[in-house]
Amino acid sequence: MADFTVTPWEVKGKVDYDKLIIQFGTQKISQELKDRIKRDVGELHVMLRRDIFFSHRDLDQVLNDYEQGKGFFLYTGRGPSLGFHIGHLVPFIFTKWLQHKFNVNLYIEVTDDEKFLRTQDYTLDQTRSFAYDNILDIIAVGFDPDKTFIFQDTEYIRNMYPLAVKIAKKLTFSQVRATFGLDVSSNLGTIFYPALQIVPTMFEKRRCLIPAGIDQDPYWRLQRDIAESLGYYKAAQIHSKFVMPLNGPEGKMSSSIPESAIYLSDDPKTVKYKVMKYAFSGGQPTVELHRKLGGNPEVDVAFQWLYMFFEEDDKRINEIEEEYRSGKMLTGELKEILIEKLNSFLEEHRRKREEARDLVHTFKYDGKLAKEMWEKIHE
Amino acid sequence: MADFTVTPWEVKGKVDYDKLIIQFGTQKISQELKDRIKRDVGELHVMLRRDIFFSHRDLDQVLNDYEQGKGFFLYTGRGPSLGFHIGHLVPFIFTKWLQHKFNVNLYIEVTDDEKFLRTQDYTLDQTRSFAYDNILDIIAVGFDPDKTFIFQDTEYIRNMYPLAVKIAKKLTFSQVRATFGLDVSSNLGTIFYPALQIVPTMFEKRRCLIPAGIDQDPYWRLQRDIAESLGYYKAAQIHSKFVMPLNGPEGKMSSSIPESAIYLSDDPKTVKYKVMKYAFSGGQPTVELHRKLGGNPEVDVAFQWLYMFFEEDDKRINEIEEEYRSGKMLTGELKEILIEKLNSFLEEHRRKREEARDLVHTFKYDGKLAKEMWEKIHE
Repeated sequence: MADFTVTPWEVKGKVDYDKLIIQFGTQKISQELKDRIKRDVGELHVMLRRDIFFSHRDLDQVLNDYEQGKGFFLYTGRGPSLGFHIGHLVPFIFTKWLQHKFNVNLYIEVTDDEKFLRTQDYTLDQTRSFAYDNILDIIAVGFDPDKTFIFQDTEYIRNMYPLAVKIAKKLTFSQVRATFGLDVSSNLGTIFYPALQIVPTMFEKRRCLIPAGIDQDPYWRLQRDIAESLGYYKAAQIHSKFVMPLNGPEGKMSSSIPESAIYLSDDPKTVKYKVMKYAFSGGQPTVELHRKLGGNPEVDVAFQWLYMFFEEDDKRINEIEEEYRSGKMLTGELKEILIEKLNSFLEEHRRKREEARDLVHTFKYDGKLAKEMWEKIHE
Repeated sequence: MADFTVTPWEVKGKVDYDKLIIQFGTQKISQELKDRIKRDVGELHVMLRRDIFFSHRDLDQVLNDYEQGKGFFLYTGRGPSLGFHIGHLVPFIFTKWLQHKFNVNLYIEVTDDEKFLRTQDYTLDQTRSFAYDNILDIIAVGFDPDKTFIFQDTEYIRNMYPLAVKIAKKLTFSQVRATFGLDVSSNLGTIFYPALQIVPTMFEKRRCLIPAGIDQDPYWRLQRDIAESLGYYKAAQIHSKFVMPLNGPEGKMSSSIPESAIYLSDDPKTVKYKVMKYAFSGGQPTVELHRKLGGNPEVDVAFQWLYMFFEEDDKRINEIEEEYRSGKMLTGELKEILIEKLNSFLEEHRRKREEARDLVHTFKYDGKLAKEMWEKIHE
């Protein structure tokens, strides 16, 4: 028995990703597939080089379609919330790279309806205001304004609804219950929502590629069961590992546990305080022991965060790993490296976030793709 | 135990309407209430005089609001189908009278989504084409184009969805399951639909009055449970009895049993044939016996249809009743009266239906009320 649990609403324990691939029935991203991507677009993103994105469904078919000129499109989403943290950014950063390298359309669904329906205390006005805020953070990542459409369910529903009811007719309560964690006491909106989540996978008559945490895979199995009967493609996926919570090497970073996360809004002092106080260390209890035995980068959150995306230079990350493992680098020093990286990343992010205010309208309504999408009723 | 069943999807047996009022917990429309309506608007519709509309919830409050100048609004609907029959027309004809007498707004929801979701074999294109057809029949009834908004769910969803999710959040699967005849094998769309049906009861911050068959009452109980918590009024209702099926005095007329119904599209020959062949008679087996014992108008469908709405003249209907009961009028003669009334009604209806083609756009999009409604997002 595995001593970890991965569902769309819970990640517990130390995840064995090889086992998870077998459990979920997905494919490992092989060296061959990575080489092929590199041939196709000239380079490999750090998250591919380091197996942060490590698993997939039909990525090979996506590459076939790309190489044959049929093309594909990208789809990702965001359940608007107050706490946008760096773990949430991982799929967006990677998606941006995919968009730029493959030069494809990207659809970003902002589920202001679902967040409202799932959270007893939120009003719809609140989730829509979170949506506005989160959209700024998303735009700051740097998507192509001509090829990206960001939409909120409560606004774009008219265009999606005919297709949504066609999808809804193919899915019963029994079928979605387990995957979405529903039961007979669930409200009607949460029960319908799975249909709305599937609609964007059918925005184009091409293959859709979804970059997301592997915990989201079960949602898309439902899509894959019904897509072809509606005349569309099964959604392809590319899955990432979880970003370790700040305070420990198990589970994943969570908005609702502040000491587990660095929020995009955390100021330099807060970042420093949180990393110093909470970041789970792979180091030894004393400097003497550390010098002697060295640290363990596998469980050290500061190292893992640098590895996952804050230190893109392969040579430099290897140096850090060696120095830490040998005991030459102390936990405090490692944390300082992360703090500096984090703060310069966040500073730059917030600068771009301010600029994003002028781009909201473009991404949502009058950019090239957005305009086309508002004229389309999905059937 | 009652030997009849009344649910929103089935009417069986000979309905005892007094018992039903007690079962459902509604109020009888008292003589006092009828007198009050007459005082308010100057006359009583034949369906009120003859207790075809016989039961209500909060109709007294609706009249309070009217008399105090607060006003109210009307809401009814239509699940689009191929077979629009005269039984379907009853609530529309009465609603038209209410609209004209009280001079109020009327909203007509055409549920092209629900019909598609509920009927395995229908495509969405089909239910939308039925919707167009049925809208012609509805417009032919003669509603006020400045004060009537006819809308299809798949088109107006954007304006309804924010309020729909607020309603949906208040209703669980358990709560709607029995009322809507759902179970775990129901599709997601049918499960969400109860929320969409409730939205129009909240189109205005005034009391909504729903004229409908009493079998629809259970739907509105759900609305009444949650309306005030959302800042709206409990929906008031005025309930009709069922139009007897042509072929028998029990149950109600059904689209799916052709010999039970006269469709609005039936030509004069078909009407004559159906009435002569199928109309359940309260007469005696032979002319001799009939002359001697007389007919029974209570179970005679031809008489009941004349009574319900085809013979509005109270003096004339009494004459017919007496002549039939006494045996002076034979079943064949009674049927001839109905056939003539039916055919002249249907001829006039079809004439108005042709004229309605030019009015569809007004009722749906650019009439006075329609225009206002397209500018409103219901929250």
